[in-house]
Amino acid sequence: MGYFRPAIEAMTGYIPGEQPKPGTNIIKLNTNENPYPPSPKALEVLRSLDSEWLRRYPDPFAKEFCQAVSEVLGVPADWVLVGNGSDDVLNVLVRACAEGADRSVVYPMPTYVLYRTLAAMQPADVVEVPYGEEFQLPIEALVAAKGAITFIATPNSPSGHCVPLEDLRTLAQQVAGIVAIDEAYVDFAESSALPLLQEFENVILLRTLSKGYSLAGLRMGFALANPKLLTGLFKVKDSYNIDAIATAIGTAAMRDQSYKNACAEKVKRSRTQLSTDLKNLGFTVLPSHGNFVLATPPDGRAEFLQQALKQRGILLRYFKQPGLDDKLRITVGTDAQNQILIEAIVSLLNS
Amino acid sequence: MGYFRPAIEAMTGYIPGEQPKPGTNIIKLNTNENPYPPSPKALEVLRSLDSEWLRRYPDPFAKEFCQAVSEVLGVPADWVLVGNGSDDVLNVLVRACAEGADRSVVYPMPTYVLYRTLAAMQPADVVEVPYGEEFQLPIEALVAAKGAITFIATPNSPSGHCVPLEDLRTLAQQVAGIVAIDEAYVDFAESSALPLLQEFENVILLRTLSKGYSLAGLRMGFALANPKLLTGLFKVKDSYNIDAIATAIGTAAMRDQSYKNACAEKVKRSRTQLSTDLKNLGFTVLPSHGNFVLATPPDGRAEFLQQALKQRGILLRYFKQPGLDDKLRITVGTDAQNQILIEAIVSLLNS
Repeated sequence: MGYFRPAIEAMTGYIPGEQPKPGTNIIKLNTNENPYPPSPKALEVLRSLDSEWLRRYPDPFAKEFCQAVSEVLGVPADWVLVGNGSDDVLNVLVRACAEGADRSVVYPMPTYVLYRTLAAMQPADVVEVPYGEEFQLPIEALVAAKGAITFIATPNSPSGHCVPLEDLRTLAQQVAGIVAIDEAYVDFAESSALPLLQEFENVILLRTLSKGYSLAGLRMGFALANPKLLTGLFKVKDSYNIDAIATAIGTAAMRDQSYKNACAEKVKRSRTQLSTDLKNLGFTVLPSHGNFVLATPPDGRAEFLQQALKQRGILLRYFKQPGLDDKLRITVGTDAQNQILIEAIVSLLNS
Repeated sequence: MGYFRPAIEAMTGYIPGEQPKPGTNIIKLNTNENPYPPSPKALEVLRSLDSEWLRRYPDPFAKEFCQAVSEVLGVPADWVLVGNGSDDVLNVLVRACAEGADRSVVYPMPTYVLYRTLAAMQPADVVEVPYGEEFQLPIEALVAAKGAITFIATPNSPSGHCVPLEDLRTLAQQVAGIVAIDEAYVDFAESSALPLLQEFENVILLRTLSKGYSLAGLRMGFALANPKLLTGLFKVKDSYNIDAIATAIGTAAMRDQSYKNACAEKVKRSRTQLSTDLKNLGFTVLPSHGNFVLATPPDGRAEFLQQALKQRGILLRYFKQPGLDDKLRITVGTDAQNQILIEAIVSLLNS
C-alpha cells in the first residue's frame, strides 16, 4: 500500500499562475490582480494592528467581517461563511457535498480549472458540459447531469462572459443539488445573482476580496447562502482558517465600497481601451465583464507571444488546452501598463 | 438526497476554545497562546509591508519561509511544506492519505481531538488506543492497528507528557504507514524528533508558529518530511493557502530564535511555579513539557472551577469527556496572570 489514497496518486495538482516576488520589475497581467492598490482605509488598519492581533487566535467565524458583508450586501450576517480565499470556500463546499458517481460535480466548459482539481481529490465524478457557440448556458445538459454541485462562474474565466440571471434562475429551479455561483469577478460586472439567494435554498454565492478589493495577498473570500446550506460547510471549514490580520483588513476594505467601485470603473474603462487596441492589431477579443480579456492573436500565435512577452518582463496567462491554446488571457492593467503591452505586441508581430 | 455527504451529516464539527475579541479585559488561559508578544522583528516587518503585499497573490510555496526553516533546523528547504496553521497541514495530510477501513487513522488517547474530526470528514476509520497509566506509548497496539497515518503529539495535549525518542523510533520502524509527529509544543520541551526525519521515509513532523512564536493570530504551521512524502500533500494543499503577510512575518519570527527561546525559558520557569502553587492548593498536576498544565482540582471540581473562574474573567479549558472531566487544562500565563488565577482559585475553594 502506498502512502497516498488512489485518488491522490491519480490526480495532477492545480498549477497556479507564475508569482514573481514583490519588488520584481515585471508587468504582471497573468493572474487577474487589480492594478490599483487596496483601499487606503485597509492600509490604515494594517498600520494600526498591534502584537495582540498576532499573539492570539483569531475569531473562528470572522464575525466582524460577516457584519460588514451583511450591511453592504443586505444579507443576514449568519448567511456568510468566510474562507482563506474563495478557493478555500470552494474546497470546503466540494468536500462537504461531492463524492463518487452519485454526488458528482457539474459545470459548463471552459471555466475555472480548480473545480476539476477539487473533484479529483474527493474523488467525485465530473460532468463537463460545453458552452454554446455564443456562450449560452447549456441548461438542459447541466440539469440532466444531476450534480450534487453545479458550478457556474459568472463573470466566467477565461471567457469573460456573464450568465444571464434568468438562466441561473431556471437552473436553480430545475436542479435538485446545489447551484454554486462563483462571482469572483462580479465587481467588474453590471449585475449579480444576489437576488437568487432569497428565492432558492440550493443557491450559494462565492465572492472574493482578491479581485475587486485588490487583496489577493491577504487570502479572503466568502460564501453567501441560507444557514441550512452553510451548516455542513461549517463542519468542514478549519476553525481558524481566516487570520486575525486578514479579518481586520478585509473588514475595512469591505466597508469602503466607494473606493472599490471607483477602481472597478477605472478598470472597466481600461478594459474597453485595451480591447479596442488589441482588435486594431488584428486580435479577436471576446466582450468581457471581468478584469481581463480573452484574446486570439492573429494567426493564433498565442504561445509564441506569451513566451516572447515574458522575455520582455510582461506576464500573460496561456492555457495549453483544446479550445484555448490559440488564445491569451490578459489581465487589464493600468492604462500605462496596457500601453507598454500593446507596444511590445506591435514590435513582436512586426519582427 | 440531502445536500451533504453522509460522512458530513453524521459528524459533529470540531469545537474550538472560546476566543474573545482583542482588547477584552480577560485572562485567557484556555487555548495555549504564548503570554509574551511575538518577536519585535516580526512586528517591524508588519509595520514595513506596503500595499503590494496585499494586492498581489502570495508565493504558493512560501519559499522565503522554507529557506528560513532550512537554515534554522538544518533540513533542506524542499523538505518543508507550509500551511495555514498546522491544522491546515493536518487536514492536508489526512485528506491525502486516509480513507475507509483500509487507510485508517490511529492515535493514542487522550490527545488532540482534531485528529478524530479530520478522520470523520473523509471518512476514515479511527483506532484510538489508550495510553498506559504513566503515559507509556502503547507501541504494540498502535502497530497492530495498521494505520495509514499514526498520529503522535509530543509534547501531548492535554497531558503535557513527551514521548521518548526511542519509542518513536521503534514505532516508525514497525509501522508501514506514516508516523505523523505533532510537535506543536516542542518549543517548550527539552528535545525533538527531528533526528528521525533522516532515518525514516515514513516520518513527518508538524510544527506551528502559534505557540512558541506567539503567532496564533497569523495562522502559520509547517510539515517537515522527505520530498517523496510531501509530493502527495502538495497536490492537496490549496495553492495560495499562506498569505503574503504571514509569510513575511513568519519568516522574521523564525529567524529570531534567540527571542523565541528566551520567551520559552520564561514560560518554563512560570510553569514550574504554577505547578507548585496548584499542588499547594491540593491539585494533582501532571509534569508538563508544553506551555500548559493538566491539573485535577481537589474533589475533582473542575467544571465548577472553570465556570466560576469564567465569571471572574479567567478562561481555562475544560474537556467534558471520560478521563478528563475532572481536570482542567491551564495555559501558563505571565507570572502576574498565574498569580491572579491562584488567588481566584483560593477564594473560590474557600467560599
